[in-house]
Amino acid sequence: MGSSVNKEELLLKQNFSNRLYQNVQPIWEKNHQHPFVVGLGTGTLDREKFIFYLKQDYVYLIDYAKLFAIGVEKANNLKIMTKFAAVLHETLHFEMELHRQYAAEFGITRADLEATEPTPINLAYTSYMRKVAANGSLAELVACLLPCAWDYWEIGKLLKSTYGETLATNPYKKWIETYSSETFGAGTQWLIDLIDELTIEKSEEELHTIEQHFQITSKYEYLFWEMNEKKQDWPI
Amino acid sequence: MGSSVNKEELLLKQNFSNRLYQNVQPIWEKNHQHPFVVGLGTGTLDREKFIFYLKQDYVYLIDYAKLFAIGVEKANNLKIMTKFAAVLHETLHFEMELHRQYAAEFGITRADLEATEPTPINLAYTSYMRKVAANGSLAELVACLLPCAWDYWEIGKLLKSTYGETLATNPYKKWIETYSSETFGAGTQWLIDLIDELTIEKSEEELHTIEQHFQITSKYEYLFWEMNEKKQDWPI
Amino acid sequence: MGSSVNKEELLLKQNFSNRLYQNVQPIWEKNHQHPFVVGLGTGTLDREKFIFYLKQDYVYLIDYAKLFAIGVEKANNLKIMTKFAAVLHETLHFEMELHRQYAAEFGITRADLEATEPTPINLAYTSYMRKVAANGSLAELVACLLPCAWDYWEIGKLLKSTYGETLATNPYKKWIETYSSETFGAGTQWLIDLIDELTIEKSEEELHTIEQHFQITSKYEYLFWEMNEKKQDWPI
Amino acid sequence: MGSSVNKEELLLKQNFSNRLYQNVQPIWEKNHQHPFVVGLGTGTLDREKFIFYLKQDYVYLIDYAKLFAIGVEKANNLKIMTKFAAVLHETLHFEMELHRQYAAEFGITRADLEATEPTPINLAYTSYMRKVAANGSLAELVACLLPCAWDYWEIGKLLKSTYGETLATNPYKKWIETYSSETFGAGTQWLIDLIDELTIEKSEEELHTIEQHFQITSKYEYLFWEMNEKKQDWPI
Repeated sequence: MGSSVNKEELLLKQNFSNRLYQNVQPIWEKNHQHPFVVGLGTGTLDREKFIFYLKQDYVYLIDYAKLFAIGVEKANNLKIMTKFAAVLHETLHFEMELHRQYAAEFGITRADLEATEPTPINLAYTSYMRKVAANGSLAELVACLLPCAWDYWEIGKLLKSTYGETLATNPYKKWIETYSSETFGAGTQWLIDLIDELTIEKSEEELHTIEQHFQITSKYEYLFWEMNEKKQDWPI
Repeated sequence: MGSSVNKEELLLKQNFSNRLYQNVQPIWEKNHQHPFVVGLGTGTLDREKFIFYLKQDYVYLIDYAKLFAIGVEKANNLKIMTKFAAVLHETLHFEMELHRQYAAEFGITRADLEATEPTPINLAYTSYMRKVAANGSLAELVACLLPCAWDYWEIGKLLKSTYGETLATNPYKKWIETYSSETFGAGTQWLIDLIDELTIEKSEEELHTIEQHFQITSKYEYLFWEMNEKKQDWPI
Repeated sequence: MGSSVNKEELLLKQNFSNRLYQNVQPIWEKNHQHPFVVGLGTGTLDREKFIFYLKQDYVYLIDYAKLFAIGVEKANNLKIMTKFAAVLHETLHFEMELHRQYAAEFGITRADLEATEPTPINLAYTSYMRKVAANGSLAELVACLLPCAWDYWEIGKLLKSTYGETLATNPYKKWIETYSSETFGAGTQWLIDLIDELTIEKSEEELHTIEQHFQITSKYEYLFWEMNEKKQDWPI
Repeated sequence: MGSSVNKEELLLKQNFSNRLYQNVQPIWEKNHQHPFVVGLGTGTLDREKFIFYLKQDYVYLIDYAKLFAIGVEKANNLKIMTKFAAVLHETLHFEMELHRQYAAEFGITRADLEATEPTPINLAYTSYMRKVAANGSLAELVACLLPCAWDYWEIGKLLKSTYGETLATNPYKKWIETYSSETFGAGTQWLIDLIDELTIEKSEEELHTIEQHFQITSKYEYLFWEMNEKKQDWPI
């Protein structure tokens, strides 16, 4: 019993997710002010840009879902393992379904979505996460997963509170409602709690590595918004 | 269209799963006649041996489920990926639940099950599969998974047809019904079809490697029955 | 004996490396005409750009060397395994030594080299290769390794033949001589022969995947020259 | 500077390798008294048993060498990476050469050695190490590698000091001299120092996992001697 009390105390004391959150604010601020993100909120985002995003994000999510599968593989207890399996299922059937529905509205088939060739930035981002997942600890894997979930949740809530009055006529309403939803938030909160749990007794050297992954994937989030805004693809 | 017609023709022509099945019969026959397996059918199996099996198989299934997660990771299309995610979910909630229910009947808690230390043979079997999964192709991974599923299905059906009349009073009735069920059979059939699909255009050298994995894991199945019958553990 | 005769015939007939070479020419042409590459040949390349390259390439080579280690791990015979171990050794002691010597001339310490933070493109390129190495076949791994070796050899020979007369006074003489050398060429030729050997009996679907890796890493080679020329780093 | 002083103090204080060594003595004692090991010392070991060992150990060493390659991959600095690459090279050319020379004396070709099918225990041992290497931390990998190196060094020194007087006529003289040699000892000492370095700031939970790997591979060492003594192979 003493041990679990100590673990809770350490958890409160350390609160590593808070450190991650504080240190990444300059990058996330840039995401929140990004023209693409603002355009989603106002509903004025160019449809072609949104379609570009939809296709790129769809193939991104295939790799992202694979990270949850690697989470199942790396989990060292059945509880974490079962939870990752559930989140994997949700990503495949909930988050990707949103994209399929939007795509259908825009006349894009499921086959089109799957056949999308990733851009250099998309490939960079997913390759980075999968390299870390293959070689690093479970905490390192979660650090890679987290910015995409956490900052989407932040953006979802921000856009809903800022542009809530015009939501009814916003063509991106469903996007905003998905990422500000309690369901999405609960999944994200689980990842936040998990990284706190996994880092309780890590050395400062390991924490630094974990924080680096969190920073780099946050930066790739920014480059991903840039890519969508400018429809950046291979120059050759 | 021509291409998919050719694929179906090749599938019928090659029928690699049939080759696997034929060549492994001498080993599987030994499994089917094994005292432990016969004891499940007659219902006379010593309860202590069954408890030994239950605990070892429970920790085996944790690793086995991880192989489905690696299947998600290695899948090169969304259909296979989604199916592996579903089978992962079923293993965690269906097959492992059977063990938890049996364990509860025998006064073994869930925590006891999870805390089981694997024997040398158990560890050998799961380590072998996970080594292949980490390093080999998806077809090699499936070849490792298959004997446990396929031969359990064979055993389930065999015991049901042979000892069906005394099933009502057999303490291992639920075990027999689980592994002879249509649900379990459907999952197994999917794996059989998948290995046929994945091996259509493999070279004879690759087929040979895949067959080796199938043979070795079939042999480990036999050693696993032996282990349970003799309650073999670490000698030191 | 018949089998090895057949293998050689198939090797000649297929010549997959020639297919790779032909199809990638439009990309490699762009590399050969790139201002940074031309500047190495004429000796007029800005020193700051070269230092930028040197540092980025040094941390790139750490990951690149790791790919040879993964080659040792994935090799299915002792001959290939031993050869990868030798190439790993050469990369650490021969190619990286060239960089250390140049760095010393420019007042950059070994610690500076190792502490270099990779740019987004550098990280994209190495992450991509390591993701493929962790998940793909040995042939896929070699396809990722090959453009860096092969096109450097092409560039080395091209610069030597084009600018050979002014080589004595070219500050980048050692670079040109390293990559046009017989030692470097022999290592590259081994990789070319290896991909031919490993692809003899692959299906067209597998060959297509392998070719994609070769094309993508060739494109990242181009983006790497661009990055050096423009000293591109993280925008945030 | 303070930091490196602290590291050295922590190293002395913790001395994790000493904890590993103390706790494993009951198992290693059994190895040292094993009839196969004693037979090597007295020179009376049955030649057929030695040949059996030689062939099994040769294919074992192929996997063992691959672990050093995975060490290169997992190393987080260039110094450790370069050292693993050197040890890999030594294993392929020094330790395996001893086996090849012995084999030649006994009329066994190099091809025979490589074609050896591993027994269930051999496969269990190498699969276990490679599963841990693929999924665990570098410290976990080293914990798997270490018993084979460290206890062989112990055995080499023990046999040399106990049976030194009859060494000149002992047919296994070269074996004893190899594993008691300074070269072999230096490689082992590096691994011992490395595990001390890698575990300085690990939590007790992580240390426990690392110790488990060390215990399990020590037990597999014992089962390996048993296997050679009894020429144990697949029962089916």
